[in-house]
Order: sequence, then structure tokens, then C-alpha cells
Amino acid sequence: MRTADELRDIVEAYLGSLAFAPELGALEDSLRYSLESGGKRVRPLLCLAVAEANGAALEEALPAAAALELVHTFSLVHDDLPALDDDDERRGRPSAHVAFGEGVALLAGDALVAEAFRLALTYERAEVARHLVAATLGMIGGQYRDITGDTGDLEELHRLKTGRLFVAAVQIGLDVAGAAERERAPWIAFGEDVGLLFQVVDDLLDGDGYAERLGTDATRALADQVAERASSRLDELVCDTTALRELLDALTFRTG
Amino acid sequence: MRTADELRDIVEAYLGSLAFAPELGALEDSLRYSLESGGKRVRPLLCLAVAEANGAALEEALPAAAALELVHTFSLVHDDLPALDDDDERRGRPSAHVAFGEGVALLAGDALVAEAFRLALTYERAEVARHLVAATLGMIGGQYRDITGDTGDLEELHRLKTGRLFVAAVQIGLDVAGAAERERAPWIAFGEDVGLLFQVVDDLLDGDGYAERLGTDATRALADQVAERASSRLDELVCDTTALRELLDALTFRTG
Repeated sequence: MRTADELRDIVEAYLGSLAFAPELGALEDSLRYSLESGGKRVRPLLCLAVAEANGAALEEALPAAAALELVHTFSLVHDDLPALDDDDERRGRPSAHVAFGEGVALLAGDALVAEAFRLALTYERAEVARHLVAATLGMIGGQYRDITGDTGDLEELHRLKTGRLFVAAVQIGLDVAGAAERERAPWIAFGEDVGLLFQVVDDLLDGDGYAERLGTDATRALADQVAERASSRLDELVCDTTALRELLDALTFRTG
Repeated sequence: MRTADELRDIVEAYLGSLAFAPELGALEDSLRYSLESGGKRVRPLLCLAVAEANGAALEEALPAAAALELVHTFSLVHDDLPALDDDDERRGRPSAHVAFGEGVALLAGDALVAEAFRLALTYERAEVARHLVAATLGMIGGQYRDITGDTGDLEELHRLKTGRLFVAAVQIGLDVAGAAERERAPWIAFGEDVGLLFQVVDDLLDGDGYAERLGTDATRALADQVAERASSRLDELVCDTTALRELLDALTFRTG
């Protein structure tokens, strides 16, 4: 079983070596620019760790893990556009539309989501792609609620915007490993907790969302509670969950 | 075997009754607006007619046919955005970004392509979705060449921007019908001709592209030549091609 850092290196190398559809031509540069912007790769890591814990070979899970990161990156590229959040920076660099222009950034986002499905469809069975498309639709629905100000139900908004792709990462890891339906519930509950933890910690760091609504102390308490629940779920799983525990610790540590 | 008009009515009814992912919420209104804008439905018709000519039940082919129309509509919604072609009208009505705002139109396009893949993934086997994603990537690559002015090779540009989705319509019709690989070549050649004919006629009507490069008379002659070649391909197919011939005649007639 590999550590989280080893898995991250493997994801980076795989993303760096991805061959995109040749029809995209030089548009490929903008896809690589946005993909190589130094994210934490939490979603592909989660997918790989779940797949490996359930007996899959790592190579088998890599295309699916990369597909998750591509969908995540697509959402960032489109959300940064002036028509949505209008963010000129992303992780300390010019965002895609600043670096390449709005038209190219729009097409780059479109190409990222299409490439994600191409990767998900390299599997013989369609489950991986089905889970990915369901999560993508949830994310888009969450972003729609966000921009229209329909944010009354914060839990639902976050469950869609952030949570769905985390849960998909777990489901897809299970798909690749061929896990039986009856064994999936505790894994999916773990994925829901990781997604919620990620969001709560993000809000703590940014001072919005949960932090704005509940105050810093109550939000920190919520993060601790979710992290503990996720950790106890790992205790109950009869397999090597080293990398998943490291991932969980790294997410929790961000609040420390 | 149904006529092209009957098939078109069936496509319209199916598109009108499509159930979108509930997570999209009110974003659904913008998807329906763009889908119900009175297009000719050439791509789904082509798919249905090919599927039916190859022995598939119509109901079996409808989700795939609709998926093609959703990908086509996604491309129109995004291409109309100010960041790309900046078209305020589409088929005599305000385009999506004028009617709903840029942010919503951007998300509507994203949702349309995701819904297309969801439909394509309702099939047990992944071929339909694979053909759809390959065509989508080709379309995006074509649009990228168009906006960056890399339009030196007009044939290649059109093959990507228009042709790929026509060929996918044929391939997907064959997928649904379970056609053998060795029987596919003449059908795909027919699809390529229909895509080229569509584009040449479009350029004749708009006075750009081929019409600008070759002049009206030579472009009209090219359209006739492609239509004849497509027609003779139908002659060689041993099955009922009534609807396909009607479709071909309707496309040709536009230049008359």
C-alpha cells in the first residue's frame, strides 16, 4: 500500500503524460496550463486509495482518477470566467481566461470535461462514466444555485458543488476494484464525510460559508466532529487504509 | 419504415418530454429554451433513420438520437456567447445568454453536454457514449481553429466542426442496431457526405466558407456532386432507406 505522497506523485506524473485528442490542436496548451496549476489532487488521491484498498491495481484506477481531476479543473476554469465568479487568479497564477483569453478558456473547459468522459469511457463497463456524469450534473446544479443566490440550504449547496465529486471519487474507486454493491455503503459514507470536511475547512480558511454562518469556533468544532466520524468509519473497514488516513489527516491539519 | 417527417415529430416529442437531472433545479428552463428553438433535428433524424434501417426499434435509438441533439445545442449555446461568436439571436429568438444572462447560458451549455452523456450512458454498452465524446472533442477542436483564425484547411475545419457529429449520428445509429464492424464502412461514408453536403449548402445560404472561396456556381456544383455521391451510396445499401433519401433531398433542396 502506497502513502498519500507516493500516490500524489503518481497522479502528477500521469496527468503530465496524458495524451489529449489530437483534434484539439494547440488548445491543448490551455488544458495543460490549468491542469498543471499545483492543486492538491485530493479527488484522484481519494479514488486511487479506495481502489487500492479494495484490491485494484493502481494502473487500472489511474484513468478514472485523472478523469475526476479533469472534471474538477473544468469547473474551476468555467467558474473563474467573468460571466461567473470573475476571478483573475487561481493558485497564484493568472486564471485561464487571463492567460489565454475568454474564448479559449471557455473551449478549454468544454474540452476538459469531454476529455474526462473519454478517459472514463476507456473502461469496458460504463459505471465509471455514469458516476462521473451524475457528479458533474450535481456540481453544475450547485454552481447554478450559487450564482442565482439560491443558497438558503447551505448543506444542499455544498453537497452538490463539492460533495458529489468526492462521493464519485469513492464510488469510482469501488467501480474500478469491482466492489460488490452490498459492501459500498460504509465507503460512500466516508466519501460524504471527506467532502463535507473539505468544504468546512475551506470555509474556515476563507472565512465564508459555514464560518460566516456558525462562527469560527462552532465551525472548527464541526470540522473536528466530521473528521472524527470519518476516522471511525475507517476503523471499521477491514483493509489497509493507510493512505486514506493520511489524506484525512492532511485535510484536518489545514485548520490547525 | 417511417418518413422523415414522422421521425422529426417523434424526436420533438421525445425532446419535449426529457427528464433532466433534478439537481439542475431551475437551470432546466434555459436548457429547454435552447432545445425548443425549432432546429431541423437533422442529426437525431439521421441517427434514427440509420438505426431503423439496420433493424433497431425506434424507442431503443431515441436516447442516443436526443444525446446528439443535446451536444449540438450545447455547441450553439456556447458558440453564441460574447466570448466566442457573440450572437444575440438564434433562429429568430434571443440567444440563451441574452434571455438568461451569460453565467446561466455558460452553465446551461455545460449541463446540456453532461445530460447528453447521461443519455448516451443509459445504454449497457459504452460504444454510443464513446462515439459521442470523440465527436464532441472534434467539434471543440474545430471551433478552436475557427476562433484562432487557423482556417487554412477549410475541409479539415468543417470536417471537425460539422462533419464529426454527422458521422457520429451514423455510427451511433449502427451501435444501437448492433451492426457488425464489417458492414459499417458504406454507412460512415454516407454520413461523411451528408455532413459535407450540410456544410456546403450552409455556406451557399450564408455566402461564406466554400461559397466565398469557390464562388456560388462552383459551390453549387460541389453540393450537387456530393448529393449525387451520397444518393448513389444509398442505392447500394440493401435495406429500406426511404427516410434517409428524404433527409438527403431536404438538405439538397435548400440550395434550389
